[in-house]
Amino acid sequence: MFSTARMTETVSGRAWIRAMLATLAALARAKAGSGLMRREMADEIGSACATVEVDAATIGLEAVSTATPVVPLLEVLRRRLGADAGAELHRGATSQDILDTAMMLVSRDAIEVLIDMIDSVQQHCAVLAREHRETVMAGRTLVQQAVPITFGLKAARWLHGLVEARESLVTYRANRLAVQLGGAAGTLAALAPHGPVVLRAMAAELGLREPVLPWHTARARVTELGAALGIAAGAAGKIAVDVILLSQDEIGEVSEGGFGRGRSSAMPHKRNPVSSVQAMACVRRGQALVQVLMGAMAQEHERAAGAWQAEWETLCDLFILTDAAARHVAAALDGLQVFPANMRANIQRSQGLLMSESAVAVLSGYLGTAVAQRTVEAAAERARAHATTLHDELLVDSEVAGRVPPDAVEHALDPARSLGAAPVFVDRALAAYSAQQAMSKSGPTGQTD
Amino acid sequence: MFSTARMTETVSGRAWIRAMLATLAALARAKAGSGLMRREMADEIGSACATVEVDAATIGLEAVSTATPVVPLLEVLRRRLGADAGAELHRGATSQDILDTAMMLVSRDAIEVLIDMIDSVQQHCAVLAREHRETVMAGRTLVQQAVPITFGLKAARWLHGLVEARESLVTYRANRLAVQLGGAAGTLAALAPHGPVVLRAMAAELGLREPVLPWHTARARVTELGAALGIAAGAAGKIAVDVILLSQDEIGEVSEGGFGRGRSSAMPHKRNPVSSVQAMACVRRGQALVQVLMGAMAQEHERAAGAWQAEWETLCDLFILTDAAARHVAAALDGLQVFPANMRANIQRSQGLLMSESAVAVLSGYLGTAVAQRTVEAAAERARAHATTLHDELLVDSEVAGRVPPDAVEHALDPARSLGAAPVFVDRALAAYSAQQAMSKSGPTGQTD
Amino acid sequence: MFSTARMTETVSGRAWIRAMLATLAALARAKAGSGLMRREMADEIGSACATVEVDAATIGLEAVSTATPVVPLLEVLRRRLGADAGAELHRGATSQDILDTAMMLVSRDAIEVLIDMIDSVQQHCAVLAREHRETVMAGRTLVQQAVPITFGLKAARWLHGLVEARESLVTYRANRLAVQLGGAAGTLAALAPHGPVVLRAMAAELGLREPVLPWHTARARVTELGAALGIAAGAAGKIAVDVILLSQDEIGEVSEGGFGRGRSSAMPHKRNPVSSVQAMACVRRGQALVQVLMGAMAQEHERAAGAWQAEWETLCDLFILTDAAARHVAAALDGLQVFPANMRANIQRSQGLLMSESAVAVLSGYLGTAVAQRTVEAAAERARAHATTLHDELLVDSEVAGRVPPDAVEHALDPARSLGAAPVFVDRALAAYSAQQAMSKSGPTGQTD
Amino acid sequence: MFSTARMTETVSGRAWIRAMLATLAALARAKAGSGLMRREMADEIGSACATVEVDAATIGLEAVSTATPVVPLLEVLRRRLGADAGAELHRGATSQDILDTAMMLVSRDAIEVLIDMIDSVQQHCAVLAREHRETVMAGRTLVQQAVPITFGLKAARWLHGLVEARESLVTYRANRLAVQLGGAAGTLAALAPHGPVVLRAMAAELGLREPVLPWHTARARVTELGAALGIAAGAAGKIAVDVILLSQDEIGEVSEGGFGRGRSSAMPHKRNPVSSVQAMACVRRGQALVQVLMGAMAQEHERAAGAWQAEWETLCDLFILTDAAARHVAAALDGLQVFPANMRANIQRSQGLLMSESAVAVLSGYLGTAVAQRTVEAAAERARAHATTLHDELLVDSEVAGRVPPDAVEHALDPARSLGAAPVFVDRALAAYSAQQAMSKSGPTGQTD
Repeated sequence: MFSTARMTETVSGRAWIRAMLATLAALARAKAGSGLMRREMADEIGSACATVEVDAATIGLEAVSTATPVVPLLEVLRRRLGADAGAELHRGATSQDILDTAMMLVSRDAIEVLIDMIDSVQQHCAVLAREHRETVMAGRTLVQQAVPITFGLKAARWLHGLVEARESLVTYRANRLAVQLGGAAGTLAALAPHGPVVLRAMAAELGLREPVLPWHTARARVTELGAALGIAAGAAGKIAVDVILLSQDEIGEVSEGGFGRGRSSAMPHKRNPVSSVQAMACVRRGQALVQVLMGAMAQEHERAAGAWQAEWETLCDLFILTDAAARHVAAALDGLQVFPANMRANIQRSQGLLMSESAVAVLSGYLGTAVAQRTVEAAAERARAHATTLHDELLVDSEVAGRVPPDAVEHALDPARSLGAAPVFVDRALAAYSAQQAMSKSGPTGQTD
Repeated sequence: MFSTARMTETVSGRAWIRAMLATLAALARAKAGSGLMRREMADEIGSACATVEVDAATIGLEAVSTATPVVPLLEVLRRRLGADAGAELHRGATSQDILDTAMMLVSRDAIEVLIDMIDSVQQHCAVLAREHRETVMAGRTLVQQAVPITFGLKAARWLHGLVEARESLVTYRANRLAVQLGGAAGTLAALAPHGPVVLRAMAAELGLREPVLPWHTARARVTELGAALGIAAGAAGKIAVDVILLSQDEIGEVSEGGFGRGRSSAMPHKRNPVSSVQAMACVRRGQALVQVLMGAMAQEHERAAGAWQAEWETLCDLFILTDAAARHVAAALDGLQVFPANMRANIQRSQGLLMSESAVAVLSGYLGTAVAQRTVEAAAERARAHATTLHDELLVDSEVAGRVPPDAVEHALDPARSLGAAPVFVDRALAAYSAQQAMSKSGPTGQTD
Repeated sequence: MFSTARMTETVSGRAWIRAMLATLAALARAKAGSGLMRREMADEIGSACATVEVDAATIGLEAVSTATPVVPLLEVLRRRLGADAGAELHRGATSQDILDTAMMLVSRDAIEVLIDMIDSVQQHCAVLAREHRETVMAGRTLVQQAVPITFGLKAARWLHGLVEARESLVTYRANRLAVQLGGAAGTLAALAPHGPVVLRAMAAELGLREPVLPWHTARARVTELGAALGIAAGAAGKIAVDVILLSQDEIGEVSEGGFGRGRSSAMPHKRNPVSSVQAMACVRRGQALVQVLMGAMAQEHERAAGAWQAEWETLCDLFILTDAAARHVAAALDGLQVFPANMRANIQRSQGLLMSESAVAVLSGYLGTAVAQRTVEAAAERARAHATTLHDELLVDSEVAGRVPPDAVEHALDPARSLGAAPVFVDRALAAYSAQQAMSKSGPTGQTD
Repeated sequence: MFSTARMTETVSGRAWIRAMLATLAALARAKAGSGLMRREMADEIGSACATVEVDAATIGLEAVSTATPVVPLLEVLRRRLGADAGAELHRGATSQDILDTAMMLVSRDAIEVLIDMIDSVQQHCAVLAREHRETVMAGRTLVQQAVPITFGLKAARWLHGLVEARESLVTYRANRLAVQLGGAAGTLAALAPHGPVVLRAMAAELGLREPVLPWHTARARVTELGAALGIAAGAAGKIAVDVILLSQDEIGEVSEGGFGRGRSSAMPHKRNPVSSVQAMACVRRGQALVQVLMGAMAQEHERAAGAWQAEWETLCDLFILTDAAARHVAAALDGLQVFPANMRANIQRSQGLLMSESAVAVLSGYLGTAVAQRTVEAAAERARAHATTLHDELLVDSEVAGRVPPDAVEHALDPARSLGAAPVFVDRALAAYSAQQAMSKSGPTGQTD
């Protein structure tokens, strides 16, 4: 219900089959390069891998008896190959080599897809950050009005959360996508003495890193990716939770879009933040999957009995749910209605109490810090009690009247003059975003692909 | 890759649509019974619900704009109904009422499917428990040989773990499957003053419990089900981990089946415990999902913004993975080869040290407890050091020779005479199993369906 | 930072030592009853267990070399016993028997403590439910105003969530707290042929259930308890999240208490819902621990290598965090300020749109359902656009004017007339609560203790 | 029960208090540097922070009413300061600034402690890898013998898993430990216009990074740390699970240490792998906590209501449990007994079937791949059936006899000649380890501290 077609395809059975075929072809070429296989045979295998049609369902179904889809895949391929090529096809490797390497290839593509989706969310955030760089609103802590911020700063924080999450994915892609080739138990015995040479050649063929060791039971590589995805989902979730809270009827500072979206089946008046709500559902579901990968690290001996086999679909689901979370957030921000007037009204409606900190600061210059603090606390309490405003109460306060110029009080209570570094931080976030985008285009990722 | 066709269908989009249609039809009949709707209109709605063809993909796709599939489903139905029936169709209810009630109906069927699967695993366990009631093997604690048990006792424990898990599911089904009907915010205002009557009638129509309150944000009902499923998966996992460990080459006490199963792509000699391995993968993936439901309990106001929406697919996946775990365990036990000779040989190969406790017990009668303890420890250490056996070392021990009759030593060191209550516990487990099965056939579940 | 002194003590090292000593004493008495030990020796052991002083830190520290605190505890005891009693003290049992039984005894006490804490939260909820049975407020779905409810209904739902959670704990206590006695590997060989008799006698001594089988690697019993605790935490979390959301400045329908609580270090005006916030922190931390118990079910052979050892402290932490969550919720509700005027004002401020459903219902009687629906939607949209109210827009609507009596429109738009079964559901929840309390006093739990 | 004294102290309440005091002192100095505070006042504050005695329990207890320990800490400090310094002490900052920065300081120390512990495990692994570079043992996949490896390779993989985990911690420490200073809602309004300057100065004072933005609700920084810790725990868990499996009586290839460790309370002969078992308990408990941090990322507005408050103790527990897991693994490896003779014997006991792959490879040169494959499979099956060896069966096989020189068969079946790149990979892992250690000493981490 939540997936995007592009990511779904990228981590589909079809994609895995393509990746496994690419792995087998690269293995053949790497062996040929090391003199372990005739070049013609590698070509025969490469050609079969490039053209064979394999049905995902069949592979999946037959795989039940061996717990991996590699055995049935090899059988399909062997029907297209001469007996010698068929026998050589998989020699030196083990099923896990093919599956783990395919997982890296699929992950490379899926990271690409996810980064595109993140980019699209970032664009919306950047636009909002720029446009609303000085749009005053209440900053809220523990869901209560605290001091003024700007909506642009909020959007800048959303943006920077994504910049961090994207950075982790880019770094992962550059450094951690590695070929897996170890043979039956990680010694490459069947390729001896050329094992390490084939390993290196195969990595080069596929544009993946050469690992220090085969990593069949060293799964930090997989868990790190899972964590990076969970964190990306979390960055999307931060945006969604803010949009949801700002969409509340009583706050009404943003709305996900025009009439017709978020319609209730029973209540015609409602404009539910449905995209953000769906994003949160994806975030919750996706992040829980990280635990599966984390818990799967203590793998037995040279191949795990259950923990490894739990990784593939978990990782695919995690890609799908993280991508979906980002997509829903993109939908929430695309056409997001922002209501600056409500933002200002909400500040007034709270008796202007969020200017307390600022009032203390300004009054301290006239009354000393301790008296200023006490005076503002008392005025705030009166404003609450009488439903007046901090402004009104301070102006008539006996400590203030005569000792603090009215202008100074006005100044101290103007949210727009109390934004501190909000615009500066907006600019910093936008600069970091631009730098990341520029880097991405010129790019270090090219090296590793 | 892991699901059974039956469970997959039971929790499929098609099944959800059927359940939502059944819910809408029951709502109409319940309203008619309370005089809130003409009987003919209820019949018109019931007939449309029974015969309409709805494509799951379409519902799912359109649902993106409202975050539930109920709105598009209603639209499809309304095309088949007169304007009045179309307008009345959903009145009084909200999307969540339809989805939550459908979730209960789907869960009822899915529990049935899962119980059947558990029954099939239980049958295998019961056969093994009976057949091997007195088949001696090493009991192992912290993966080391401890004292003798019987393989039948191990199977009896597997069986009883499933009896407990099944009991939780049966109890849940009998007590906790409830209709959800609250209207927009749980007051049934649109059905006033007949709300509670319609609630009760709708529960009766569907064979579900009438809840004390509508439970739109009271999700213990869902989390309890998730926990029961996670526990059932855990009971399956206990069996799988034992089969895996007993299948080790160096232990060789069981094997999942004949040559051909569990074949390795590179190593023709291996007979991998593939079903148990796949079961463990399902257990790991399934149990992690319980966390999603647990974490979704703190739901906002009268409908959650993300937590509720995360439940449906999580619950479906949890049913599929628990069922798959059980199926793989059934496959592991179906045709499980048991090697009693290896069981005995393994005891010997460990210097017979697992008879230490028994030896201390018997020798205590002759030497006093303290001396017996010290003597056996020393003999065990010598047996380890010289790769002899505890038996040999005790017979020549100076404390023992002359003070303990050789017969008594022999007796003390015979695993088959040291089984304690193992056969009794086998019988107790089988009796509990039979009682549960008998109850199940006569039984109380009939009341609630 | 979050625990209550009572629960902390109940699951402390001291409490575990007391429970282990009680277990050892009960084992001795049970053996004496079966003729396996002289009555005087059982008395000697019982007396030592009752009077010995054991330092938790020492036991914990020494335990590192054996992975359980039982071995050092036995050593301390033996220093107080004659050689024979010392040798007999633990015979027939294994460390896990002592620890698992102690876990059940500790859990029994901890459940008692937790139920008391839940009772205290329930009392607050019940008072609120009764007092505000007809206090009108906006029901909110997806954080938007939906239709009117009463604050009493909200409190009744909080109450009933706790009633359900408490019921699970009571049922668990009545049915699932069982003695564990299996000896080295679950056969009770060292007690043969009296094992089952001792098992039963020991259960009776301790007021625990006799299990069908020793449950050293059948851990559903522990996971079920963990799930029940996680669900209780979730029920507390539901209350906390509502209090937090209702405490928002812009909503202001409740406040956790007078000035001085929830003070900010920098912002003197804030009244943060600190108890609810801390409750949520406890809920998040506690529920995550359930996963440890769930994942620990697949235990190896006759004693697990790591999974079992992860249970004890996890369960203690889970008790502490669940109790703390409930305590913080109790603090939030104790002296909770409720602002009915704000509840009404919030309805007005949203253009009265939450009366849409009711308006459609009433207008349908005059205009037919389809027209009524369309008319209300249009009026709602105009009210939103012009910041008027649904009431005003409907009165001047051309479809309505002349065809619907103004009185009927007024009636349809009065929240207090649109509460449906809210008061009825309040009464149902209070009745269920009273029944549970009555049962609790008279009742069935006495049997099992 | 599991913690090391050093880590326990490093993340203790005392340590947090020290870190909060250091943060407050640094804030004062940073403000003085920017002209926002007189140098003498900063000195007064710095001196008070350096010398004040604060009782952790008191701070913790009082904190209940505000949900942070910062407010009571400030009160204690103010008693030592003049009124002006007391009023200025915290100005510009919010409680979260102090706590988050303290969390970074505590984490910096705790990472140091953990890295030391990892180093100690690595040393043991490196020694084992070097010593057993060519010690032949069975490689095992799905817990069955697959092909020969060396024990040194296994230890090298353990080592490299730790190298990867340590690298993540070092990278985190170098790049992600950042000061937090945002004021009430992240704008630094109370420091305007010097906020960013103070932020930079405070970072420099504490040797922490200056963040692009205050990160009060951007929690990737915390979750990344949690993930790195969970992954480090997982790397320890990989070692523990291998030691446990190799310690099995029937395998007996390693043992955790001499008699006296791992003693059972009832079975004097057992030598349980207690350290590895305890390590696994810590791994399970620790990794589950990552989920709390992951799930806490979607934080509300400018400060979260529960999610943030769940972080502190979770992170401390995660440090303690990860450190404890590593310590237990260090204990398991310290004095680990390795039994090469048993490693060879286990290969023989499995009919030498793990040489099948090698046999196919060699025979292929004489018989062609297809025939070789078929021949070896048949011989393996006969060896299993008759409890002979692959060696014996191949020598008398009709396909082999006469067509393959007996020498070639012998060669093909010698595990020591079939180690492939095992020694090479050992060397690679040792080289990577040395490089990391060298870097660590010269190092880049110096820059960031």
